[in-house]
Amino acid sequence: MGVCHAVIRSVRPGVPIVDVTHGIARHDVRQGAIVLRNALPYLPVGVHVAVVDPQVGTERRALAVRCGDGRILVGPDNGVLSLAWERAGGAVEAVDISRSSFRLEPVSATFHGRDVFVPVAARLVAGAELLEAGEPLDPAELRVLDLPTPSVDSSLALGHALLVDRYGNVSLDMGHSDLLALGLTLGAPVSVAVRGEEREAVFVQTFADVPEHALLLYEDAWGSLALAVNRGDAAAELGVEIDDEVRVAPIR
Amino acid sequence: MGVCHAVIRSVRPGVPIVDVTHGIARHDVRQGAIVLRNALPYLPVGVHVAVVDPQVGTERRALAVRCGDGRILVGPDNGVLSLAWERAGGAVEAVDISRSSFRLEPVSATFHGRDVFVPVAARLVAGAELLEAGEPLDPAELRVLDLPTPSVDSSLALGHALLVDRYGNVSLDMGHSDLLALGLTLGAPVSVAVRGEEREAVFVQTFADVPEHALLLYEDAWGSLALAVNRGDAAAELGVEIDDEVRVAPIR
Amino acid sequence: MGVCHAVIRSVRPGVPIVDVTHGIARHDVRQGAIVLRNALPYLPVGVHVAVVDPQVGTERRALAVRCGDGRILVGPDNGVLSLAWERAGGAVEAVDISRSSFRLEPVSATFHGRDVFVPVAARLVAGAELLEAGEPLDPAELRVLDLPTPSVDSSLALGHALLVDRYGNVSLDMGHSDLLALGLTLGAPVSVAVRGEEREAVFVQTFADVPEHALLLYEDAWGSLALAVNRGDAAAELGVEIDDEVRVAPIR
Repeated sequence: MGVCHAVIRSVRPGVPIVDVTHGIARHDVRQGAIVLRNALPYLPVGVHVAVVDPQVGTERRALAVRCGDGRILVGPDNGVLSLAWERAGGAVEAVDISRSSFRLEPVSATFHGRDVFVPVAARLVAGAELLEAGEPLDPAELRVLDLPTPSVDSSLALGHALLVDRYGNVSLDMGHSDLLALGLTLGAPVSVAVRGEEREAVFVQTFADVPEHALLLYEDAWGSLALAVNRGDAAAELGVEIDDEVRVAPIR
Repeated sequence: MGVCHAVIRSVRPGVPIVDVTHGIARHDVRQGAIVLRNALPYLPVGVHVAVVDPQVGTERRALAVRCGDGRILVGPDNGVLSLAWERAGGAVEAVDISRSSFRLEPVSATFHGRDVFVPVAARLVAGAELLEAGEPLDPAELRVLDLPTPSVDSSLALGHALLVDRYGNVSLDMGHSDLLALGLTLGAPVSVAVRGEEREAVFVQTFADVPEHALLLYEDAWGSLALAVNRGDAAAELGVEIDDEVRVAPIR
Repeated sequence: MGVCHAVIRSVRPGVPIVDVTHGIARHDVRQGAIVLRNALPYLPVGVHVAVVDPQVGTERRALAVRCGDGRILVGPDNGVLSLAWERAGGAVEAVDISRSSFRLEPVSATFHGRDVFVPVAARLVAGAELLEAGEPLDPAELRVLDLPTPSVDSSLALGHALLVDRYGNVSLDMGHSDLLALGLTLGAPVSVAVRGEEREAVFVQTFADVPEHALLLYEDAWGSLALAVNRGDAAAELGVEIDDEVRVAPIR
């Protein structure tokens, strides 16, 4: 939202701002958490704000969290920041900014991005100390997101659909190394079972390695294994929904 | 549109730019005017351009207007700027920039954002005087937007649907104080009548204060009373259209 | 995509960035090439990245090209840059950046915007020489986009639908001067034949010059003749698709 940029510019006119995405589905805390975690290695160390906040205006806490690698994360205490701090060296210091003196008055009940998170972040960018921004919290008390657990043995990789992008590509909670553990090499056919239906896909490097409309399994740009249809929509064609179990096995 | 940023950067490479929104419905001058007025208090004092311009290429005037609080507004003379200058201390000086020497030649017939408004704005940011940008105009002659008038007495608040956001929340031309005038306090049930149908809503602070799918009346992030359905689309469910009369009354 | 901005900011925190568009249809190399060419005169001389890249991850080359006017273009060697360098004084020097040392490691197979094109562009902005970015290429070997050829004589202008914008306005590969060659002046009725059907339009300067729902032919903001319906969708109403032949003739 443009006014959030305006609020930042009111405090620090020339500071570089990067909008990672405005495409998170409404209320989808987990999608926001995963996208932030994925983007993190590409973001210069700085102050990162994430707002997916279905409980805005209630007693849920608002946070600023310093990570082990020096990044500061700002957002609601609903898990949306938790995957990011796990990747950034852990949460080493946290404050509750729900009543921060850096808030924009009057604080609305429904737009804490503008009135709480962004003004606090802007003041931290401007050099304020974390402890000036709010009340100290024990980092161990912060809400952490639970994700399903994949399992891999030598004959089967059992994972889950974690993310679907706007092209219908389905990102799984498995990586390239899991397929290697199955003894698979690039170009190998694999069996993919979703929702009780089994299909054949090819384990390849990129879309153009298979014919149009063929199903492929590849390492996506974030290092996750993903299902896709070349020039098609894998999520729609397979009927995959988030959290669906996906079984991948070699075809011998 | 990206080329408008490019035109600004050609004049002032490093100047901070804030895009308030690109989401105004095509030709909806009033929506543009209201959104600009709402955003204004959050924007640093500067030069603000608004282009909702169904009459582009005709003889409608192009304006640059200095406000009482020092802001300069640039856009077509069709009312889109008028709510903003009312909030910004009034229009104290105005020029007609239709034939401004700051325009980008050749001036297209259909994209005055790029060819007239933005280049004039960039030159004003760069320090040009308003009178260098165009011909003086009497501020009293500028087009002003007419909005419906709400009325409130001790038993009934009669307002109108002013804006519908992308979630279907309906912003009204009434404020919190109007409900207080009705003797309502947070948590009170209210009757809401739209298009001849009466429904019960609750006057609350935020969405999470009511169950899913319940109708609520709350002060939105811009200080207006608004109708919403928690995790739903109030405009669609109530069949509300812009300018519809909305009657709010206490349930005793 | 926001992470591309982040990658630029990691190299050059404060450099001005302009997003020309994120609205190119998936895989539509030609639309990308035309939009870049159209925008070019409005962009300050600098480094311009264009990524429409259906062959990403295959052996297609990645390019950085210096143009006659000093601009540097970065993108895949599939023609998406070719209309731009034609407008910018020609391709005077080119390098293959497919294995550039400026790439971001590990290079993903599917997101070369982030891992190849943008990091190379950022280093060029930061002052690196073109020859440090990759292996020299003969500019004559680069892929060039083929566009259909319009023809105009004194009684008929025969062109093609090149671009359809989000409002359904159809940009043709003809210009204002072609209609003047037909002896047409502003306000003249013209016959427009598409897909075997003939309709009457008016040659005017802008939308507001015709009644609502009337068909008009006008010079669009990029200097091309375009078909539009005032407050309507010309592409939908005429059933026009890209590359369709459009015949324009005077009505005597």
